[in-house]
Amino acid sequence: MDGESASAQLAFGSSDILPEGALDEALQRAAQEGRALRVKLGMDPTAPDLHLGHTVLLHKARQFQDLGHQVLFLIGDFTARIGDPTGKSSTRPPLSAEAVAANAETYRQQIFRILDPQRTEIVFNSHWLDALKPQELIQLAARYTVARMLERDDFSKRYQAQQPIAVHEFLYPLLQGYDSVALRADVELGGTDQRFNLLVGRELQKEYGQRPQVVLTMPILEGLDGTQKMSKSLGNTIALEDPPEQMFGKLMSISDTLMWRYYALLSAKSPQEQLLLRRQAEAGALNPRDCKLDLAQELVARFHGEEVGVNARAAFLAQFQRREVPDDLPTQTLRIDPPRTLAKCLQALGWVRSSSEGMRKIREGAVQLDGIRIEEPSLVLEAGNEHLLQFGKRHIARVCLQGEETDHA
Amino acid sequence: MDGESASAQLAFGSSDILPEGALDEALQRAAQEGRALRVKLGMDPTAPDLHLGHTVLLHKARQFQDLGHQVLFLIGDFTARIGDPTGKSSTRPPLSAEAVAANAETYRQQIFRILDPQRTEIVFNSHWLDALKPQELIQLAARYTVARMLERDDFSKRYQAQQPIAVHEFLYPLLQGYDSVALRADVELGGTDQRFNLLVGRELQKEYGQRPQVVLTMPILEGLDGTQKMSKSLGNTIALEDPPEQMFGKLMSISDTLMWRYYALLSAKSPQEQLLLRRQAEAGALNPRDCKLDLAQELVARFHGEEVGVNARAAFLAQFQRREVPDDLPTQTLRIDPPRTLAKCLQALGWVRSSSEGMRKIREGAVQLDGIRIEEPSLVLEAGNEHLLQFGKRHIARVCLQGEETDHA
Repeated sequence: MDGESASAQLAFGSSDILPEGALDEALQRAAQEGRALRVKLGMDPTAPDLHLGHTVLLHKARQFQDLGHQVLFLIGDFTARIGDPTGKSSTRPPLSAEAVAANAETYRQQIFRILDPQRTEIVFNSHWLDALKPQELIQLAARYTVARMLERDDFSKRYQAQQPIAVHEFLYPLLQGYDSVALRADVELGGTDQRFNLLVGRELQKEYGQRPQVVLTMPILEGLDGTQKMSKSLGNTIALEDPPEQMFGKLMSISDTLMWRYYALLSAKSPQEQLLLRRQAEAGALNPRDCKLDLAQELVARFHGEEVGVNARAAFLAQFQRREVPDDLPTQTLRIDPPRTLAKCLQALGWVRSSSEGMRKIREGAVQLDGIRIEEPSLVLEAGNEHLLQFGKRHIARVCLQGEETDHA
Repeated sequence: MDGESASAQLAFGSSDILPEGALDEALQRAAQEGRALRVKLGMDPTAPDLHLGHTVLLHKARQFQDLGHQVLFLIGDFTARIGDPTGKSSTRPPLSAEAVAANAETYRQQIFRILDPQRTEIVFNSHWLDALKPQELIQLAARYTVARMLERDDFSKRYQAQQPIAVHEFLYPLLQGYDSVALRADVELGGTDQRFNLLVGRELQKEYGQRPQVVLTMPILEGLDGTQKMSKSLGNTIALEDPPEQMFGKLMSISDTLMWRYYALLSAKSPQEQLLLRRQAEAGALNPRDCKLDLAQELVARFHGEEVGVNARAAFLAQFQRREVPDDLPTQTLRIDPPRTLAKCLQALGWVRSSSEGMRKIREGAVQLDGIRIEEPSLVLEAGNEHLLQFGKRHIARVCLQGEETDHA
């Protein structure tokens, strides 16, 4: 891969690359010097399991590895052990040393489903942060001002809203930035919510006489609901430890819009391939459901192996013929004037009062056709085929649309 | 001394005793439990020499000792070594370990001119602060909010004025408060500028399950100029190391107003005695100059011994007869109509154009009579006596006022 396409691939899906042009420069410099870039990716071992949301960054890190660079996977065991001792926030409960060690071990096992072990170094920030003398920690705190800390979006909002910010919260960005100094990172990857902290890392590196790291942020992955961030506490996750069939089914349940987002942030398909697929689907040349099947298979294969991916796809297709359908569900014949839209079917079944209500319900994602959620209200069904229709949780029907030719027979 | 008068003596001259009534309670409790109060007094060893400004607090601490209590004299060597590493402030330059040790030794030698060694324990906060683990320091920072820190007067002003506050400056009050926890202080003494920090100490003690200390603040002593705080950098100090004659002379040069302030903050005379002296002086029954001589002698004696105090007074009185007066200065005879005010003398000498200008100059402190600055414009001189008059730095005259009887002779 040439430098330009390498740079384009790394930039694909990202939110920010800061400062502008710095990634290209770093890649060129590394090539000239014949050395690998040191790419830092830090995670606090606060959750026992990784989910797809975590893999967005791992996937980006893997792209760096495939270009020959070195990933420093930082387990923030120091930060996790401290948590939030004020007990005023439930988002960062302090963890025991045992819990941190157990979670770190889980991470260690799971990240190599994505990362290349040959090009990964696992590091723990307790290694250097525990060794800081009080005086050194205070000198670190002297390198940043209160006013600039209060510019961080969440701090600013909380301060304005008179919600408490404990003084030690100002130390986190500095400690995280100091990690970059300790690691001599060339690049740091993080979610968009980490942008401020990653930039603090740049400034501390300058203060300590290092070349400041390139900051690359990735969007936060939405969960299955398509709106809120994927988070265990919200129950909208796909965990790496999910059994293959479950993972496959969850992926098949997402909306088309979310599917393209997952493609961009998770698929190994090149930016060009993805663009092509999407254009074909939008033009009607490709069924989005097939794209979803491909994505589900790709991701299940990534975490469970190629063969498991193929089997999961086959099992899904076989299962959806019968799933959630009572064995004795009779086939109803519907007579509808063409165009035989899905909305009209809903009306014919008596589930909605009008075709336009049907269209609205379809847009809201309440309707499944053959086990797949449909969000296209003007979808037209062919006569003669049997379909399984579901509306909400209560309504289910097996239907056969009678065509004009049948009428006239 | 009964409890009430003990409490009154300790409160005399203070700015704040917080919370209200707490000192009385603490004194009563100590008496009931038959134990001494632990009275904390901290100083950063940033200045090589102590001056009278520092002794205000030492003097208050000594009053506690005279009532049987224990003073914990804290040398803030940890804080002083850190200084202000940003280099943006010249007020707290970082000191080397050697400089801190040397200054601490100077303090150790000088404080016992005031404190009772039998009831003093000298402690260094590096002893426990150096031993803090990074995690403990962060947990300490978690116990206070950014918003409350920004309520501190100087922080608030700097933040409003968009002047930088480094993050580590928020750690100082917490470290200083933690000192109170480490020492299990019952009372902490400090200047009014330390009020916020001393109150942080109270809150940390509560957090650590201790009874919170009583906070007693003392005013900041003005320097020789009578307006700015006594500070080496302002050149308005009386150092404890000043030779006795110099100390005596400096004390004699202060204004009457400042003298009463020095009495209140430095003299061992009881509140009642001081009040009486002041009333007598104001009623004209006592010459303020004599009160100043007494104060100068008392303070010189405190730092150099009783005999040296007596000698310094004698030397001062002897010297001022001839000092700054040319040997061949002739005696001028002035004829002035009664009342023979000082202002009229100045006019008769041609130093001012009118009696009212003379009165203004006297009020401004520009005039000395017999080596003593006079600020009472309506002072009346008796005829027949010889006086030495000085106006500013240029004018000096030996005068004799001719009385009416002489006129009529």
